[in-house]
Amino acid sequence: MQIARFVSDSQIRYGILDGEELAVLTGDPMYAGFDPTGERVAVADAQLLAPVIPRSKVVGIGRNYRDHAAELGNDVPEEPLVFLKPNTSVIGPGDAIVYPPTTSNLHFEGEIALVMGKVARNVAAADALSHVFGITAANDVTARDLQKSDPQWTRGKGFDTFCPLGPVIQTEFDADAIGVRTLLDGEVVQDGTSADLVFDFGSLIEFVSSFTTLLPGDVILTGTPAGVGAMQKGQTVTVEVEGVGTLSNTVQ
Amino acid sequence: MQIARFVSDSQIRYGILDGEELAVLTGDPMYAGFDPTGERVAVADAQLLAPVIPRSKVVGIGRNYRDHAAELGNDVPEEPLVFLKPNTSVIGPGDAIVYPPTTSNLHFEGEIALVMGKVARNVAAADALSHVFGITAANDVTARDLQKSDPQWTRGKGFDTFCPLGPVIQTEFDADAIGVRTLLDGEVVQDGTSADLVFDFGSLIEFVSSFTTLLPGDVILTGTPAGVGAMQKGQTVTVEVEGVGTLSNTVQ
Repeated sequence: MQIARFVSDSQIRYGILDGEELAVLTGDPMYAGFDPTGERVAVADAQLLAPVIPRSKVVGIGRNYRDHAAELGNDVPEEPLVFLKPNTSVIGPGDAIVYPPTTSNLHFEGEIALVMGKVARNVAAADALSHVFGITAANDVTARDLQKSDPQWTRGKGFDTFCPLGPVIQTEFDADAIGVRTLLDGEVVQDGTSADLVFDFGSLIEFVSSFTTLLPGDVILTGTPAGVGAMQKGQTVTVEVEGVGTLSNTVQ
Repeated sequence: MQIARFVSDSQIRYGILDGEELAVLTGDPMYAGFDPTGERVAVADAQLLAPVIPRSKVVGIGRNYRDHAAELGNDVPEEPLVFLKPNTSVIGPGDAIVYPPTTSNLHFEGEIALVMGKVARNVAAADALSHVFGITAANDVTARDLQKSDPQWTRGKGFDTFCPLGPVIQTEFDADAIGVRTLLDGEVVQDGTSADLVFDFGSLIEFVSSFTTLLPGDVILTGTPAGVGAMQKGQTVTVEVEGVGTLSNTVQ
């Protein structure tokens, strides 16, 4: 199922995407279940929003594809390289990525994101996927110059608008074979698959939940494949995740 | 005023600390104002909780006292050194700090914490304090070995229970002259004042809000003075902030 969070008639609601329509749900299915109201809204009449606003954290993972680690001159880490993006950096499909005046090297990083559905603490890799609500597409937008010059990645990864998510949460997926592509103004610049992850979804959840409790709605960005590069103002970046659809944002 | 969040009769409520009693408020004063119900609860009958659970983020500041930067062999940074702790690391007065099995060098860092009261985005230092709801005491608990060995500080600073806050929020303070002390099993190990901050409260809020929106309830840990050191299981660490009181937690 593809779950959307959307605005229509000035109301924020959740729905199941069904072709060109949304089957409206009574509430957030992460808490309220998949309970349809019976109402249907045309996708054309709805504005899709980020399908989740993490109540606690967006966990980022660095250097989780060999070819990407290599392109930035880094080794593959021995343990997952974990950082945090604030939930205030989240935007939805179609929202603008704001180019900060303090950077001159703004990069896209197309990624598969895990949306947690259950509280996870000290979860073993083998049990981890049962704690996942679904996957979505993400752009781990990064001010590459600030990421390098600051002692921590907080600012380089944390600006408002630096975490586009969407357009929907896909609840069914094969964790080891999800394609992820990034297009810049329509040209494919990244093309990867979860088969090539250094640390797979289960291992990431095991590691992260070994020190911090993941709450329902928390998001893990699972890392970006090779091909990251700069975006300029006016360009549109699109992240496509298999089974999820396309997440497009324009740089402003 | 000293604002407490507390449990009594199995209810979580807010109150104004008045000697040995709490004057109960109708709701969270950050949103509902200082509206008393008329009821009074003896402090002895209440369990004080972390006075705030940040809805978005705990922002940490590294190396913000010259003597502390020096004791760890670091220079004072030219701009505030910003990191994030997840809100899931917050605990309250009296709660246990859990010693993780993956560290062998668990440190206390007593700090003055700012609790934001208004949305802050691109706020100038001169206007910054009007966005602060109050101050509280914090312990920026740190697994020093993991902080050094991991590429980012996320795990070393982010374990569950690594952010004791409390016991109250003090809404009145002189930003440039707040004393902060840390005691380990009753012995003073840190003794500082906000007069010695490298970047004062206003400058911190200006810098942080230049890239990320601060929400009401977000917390900024303003840095720790010299004297950080290791805690062992069974030891009690107490952070005293002038006007706030004492925040004590035992390592378990």
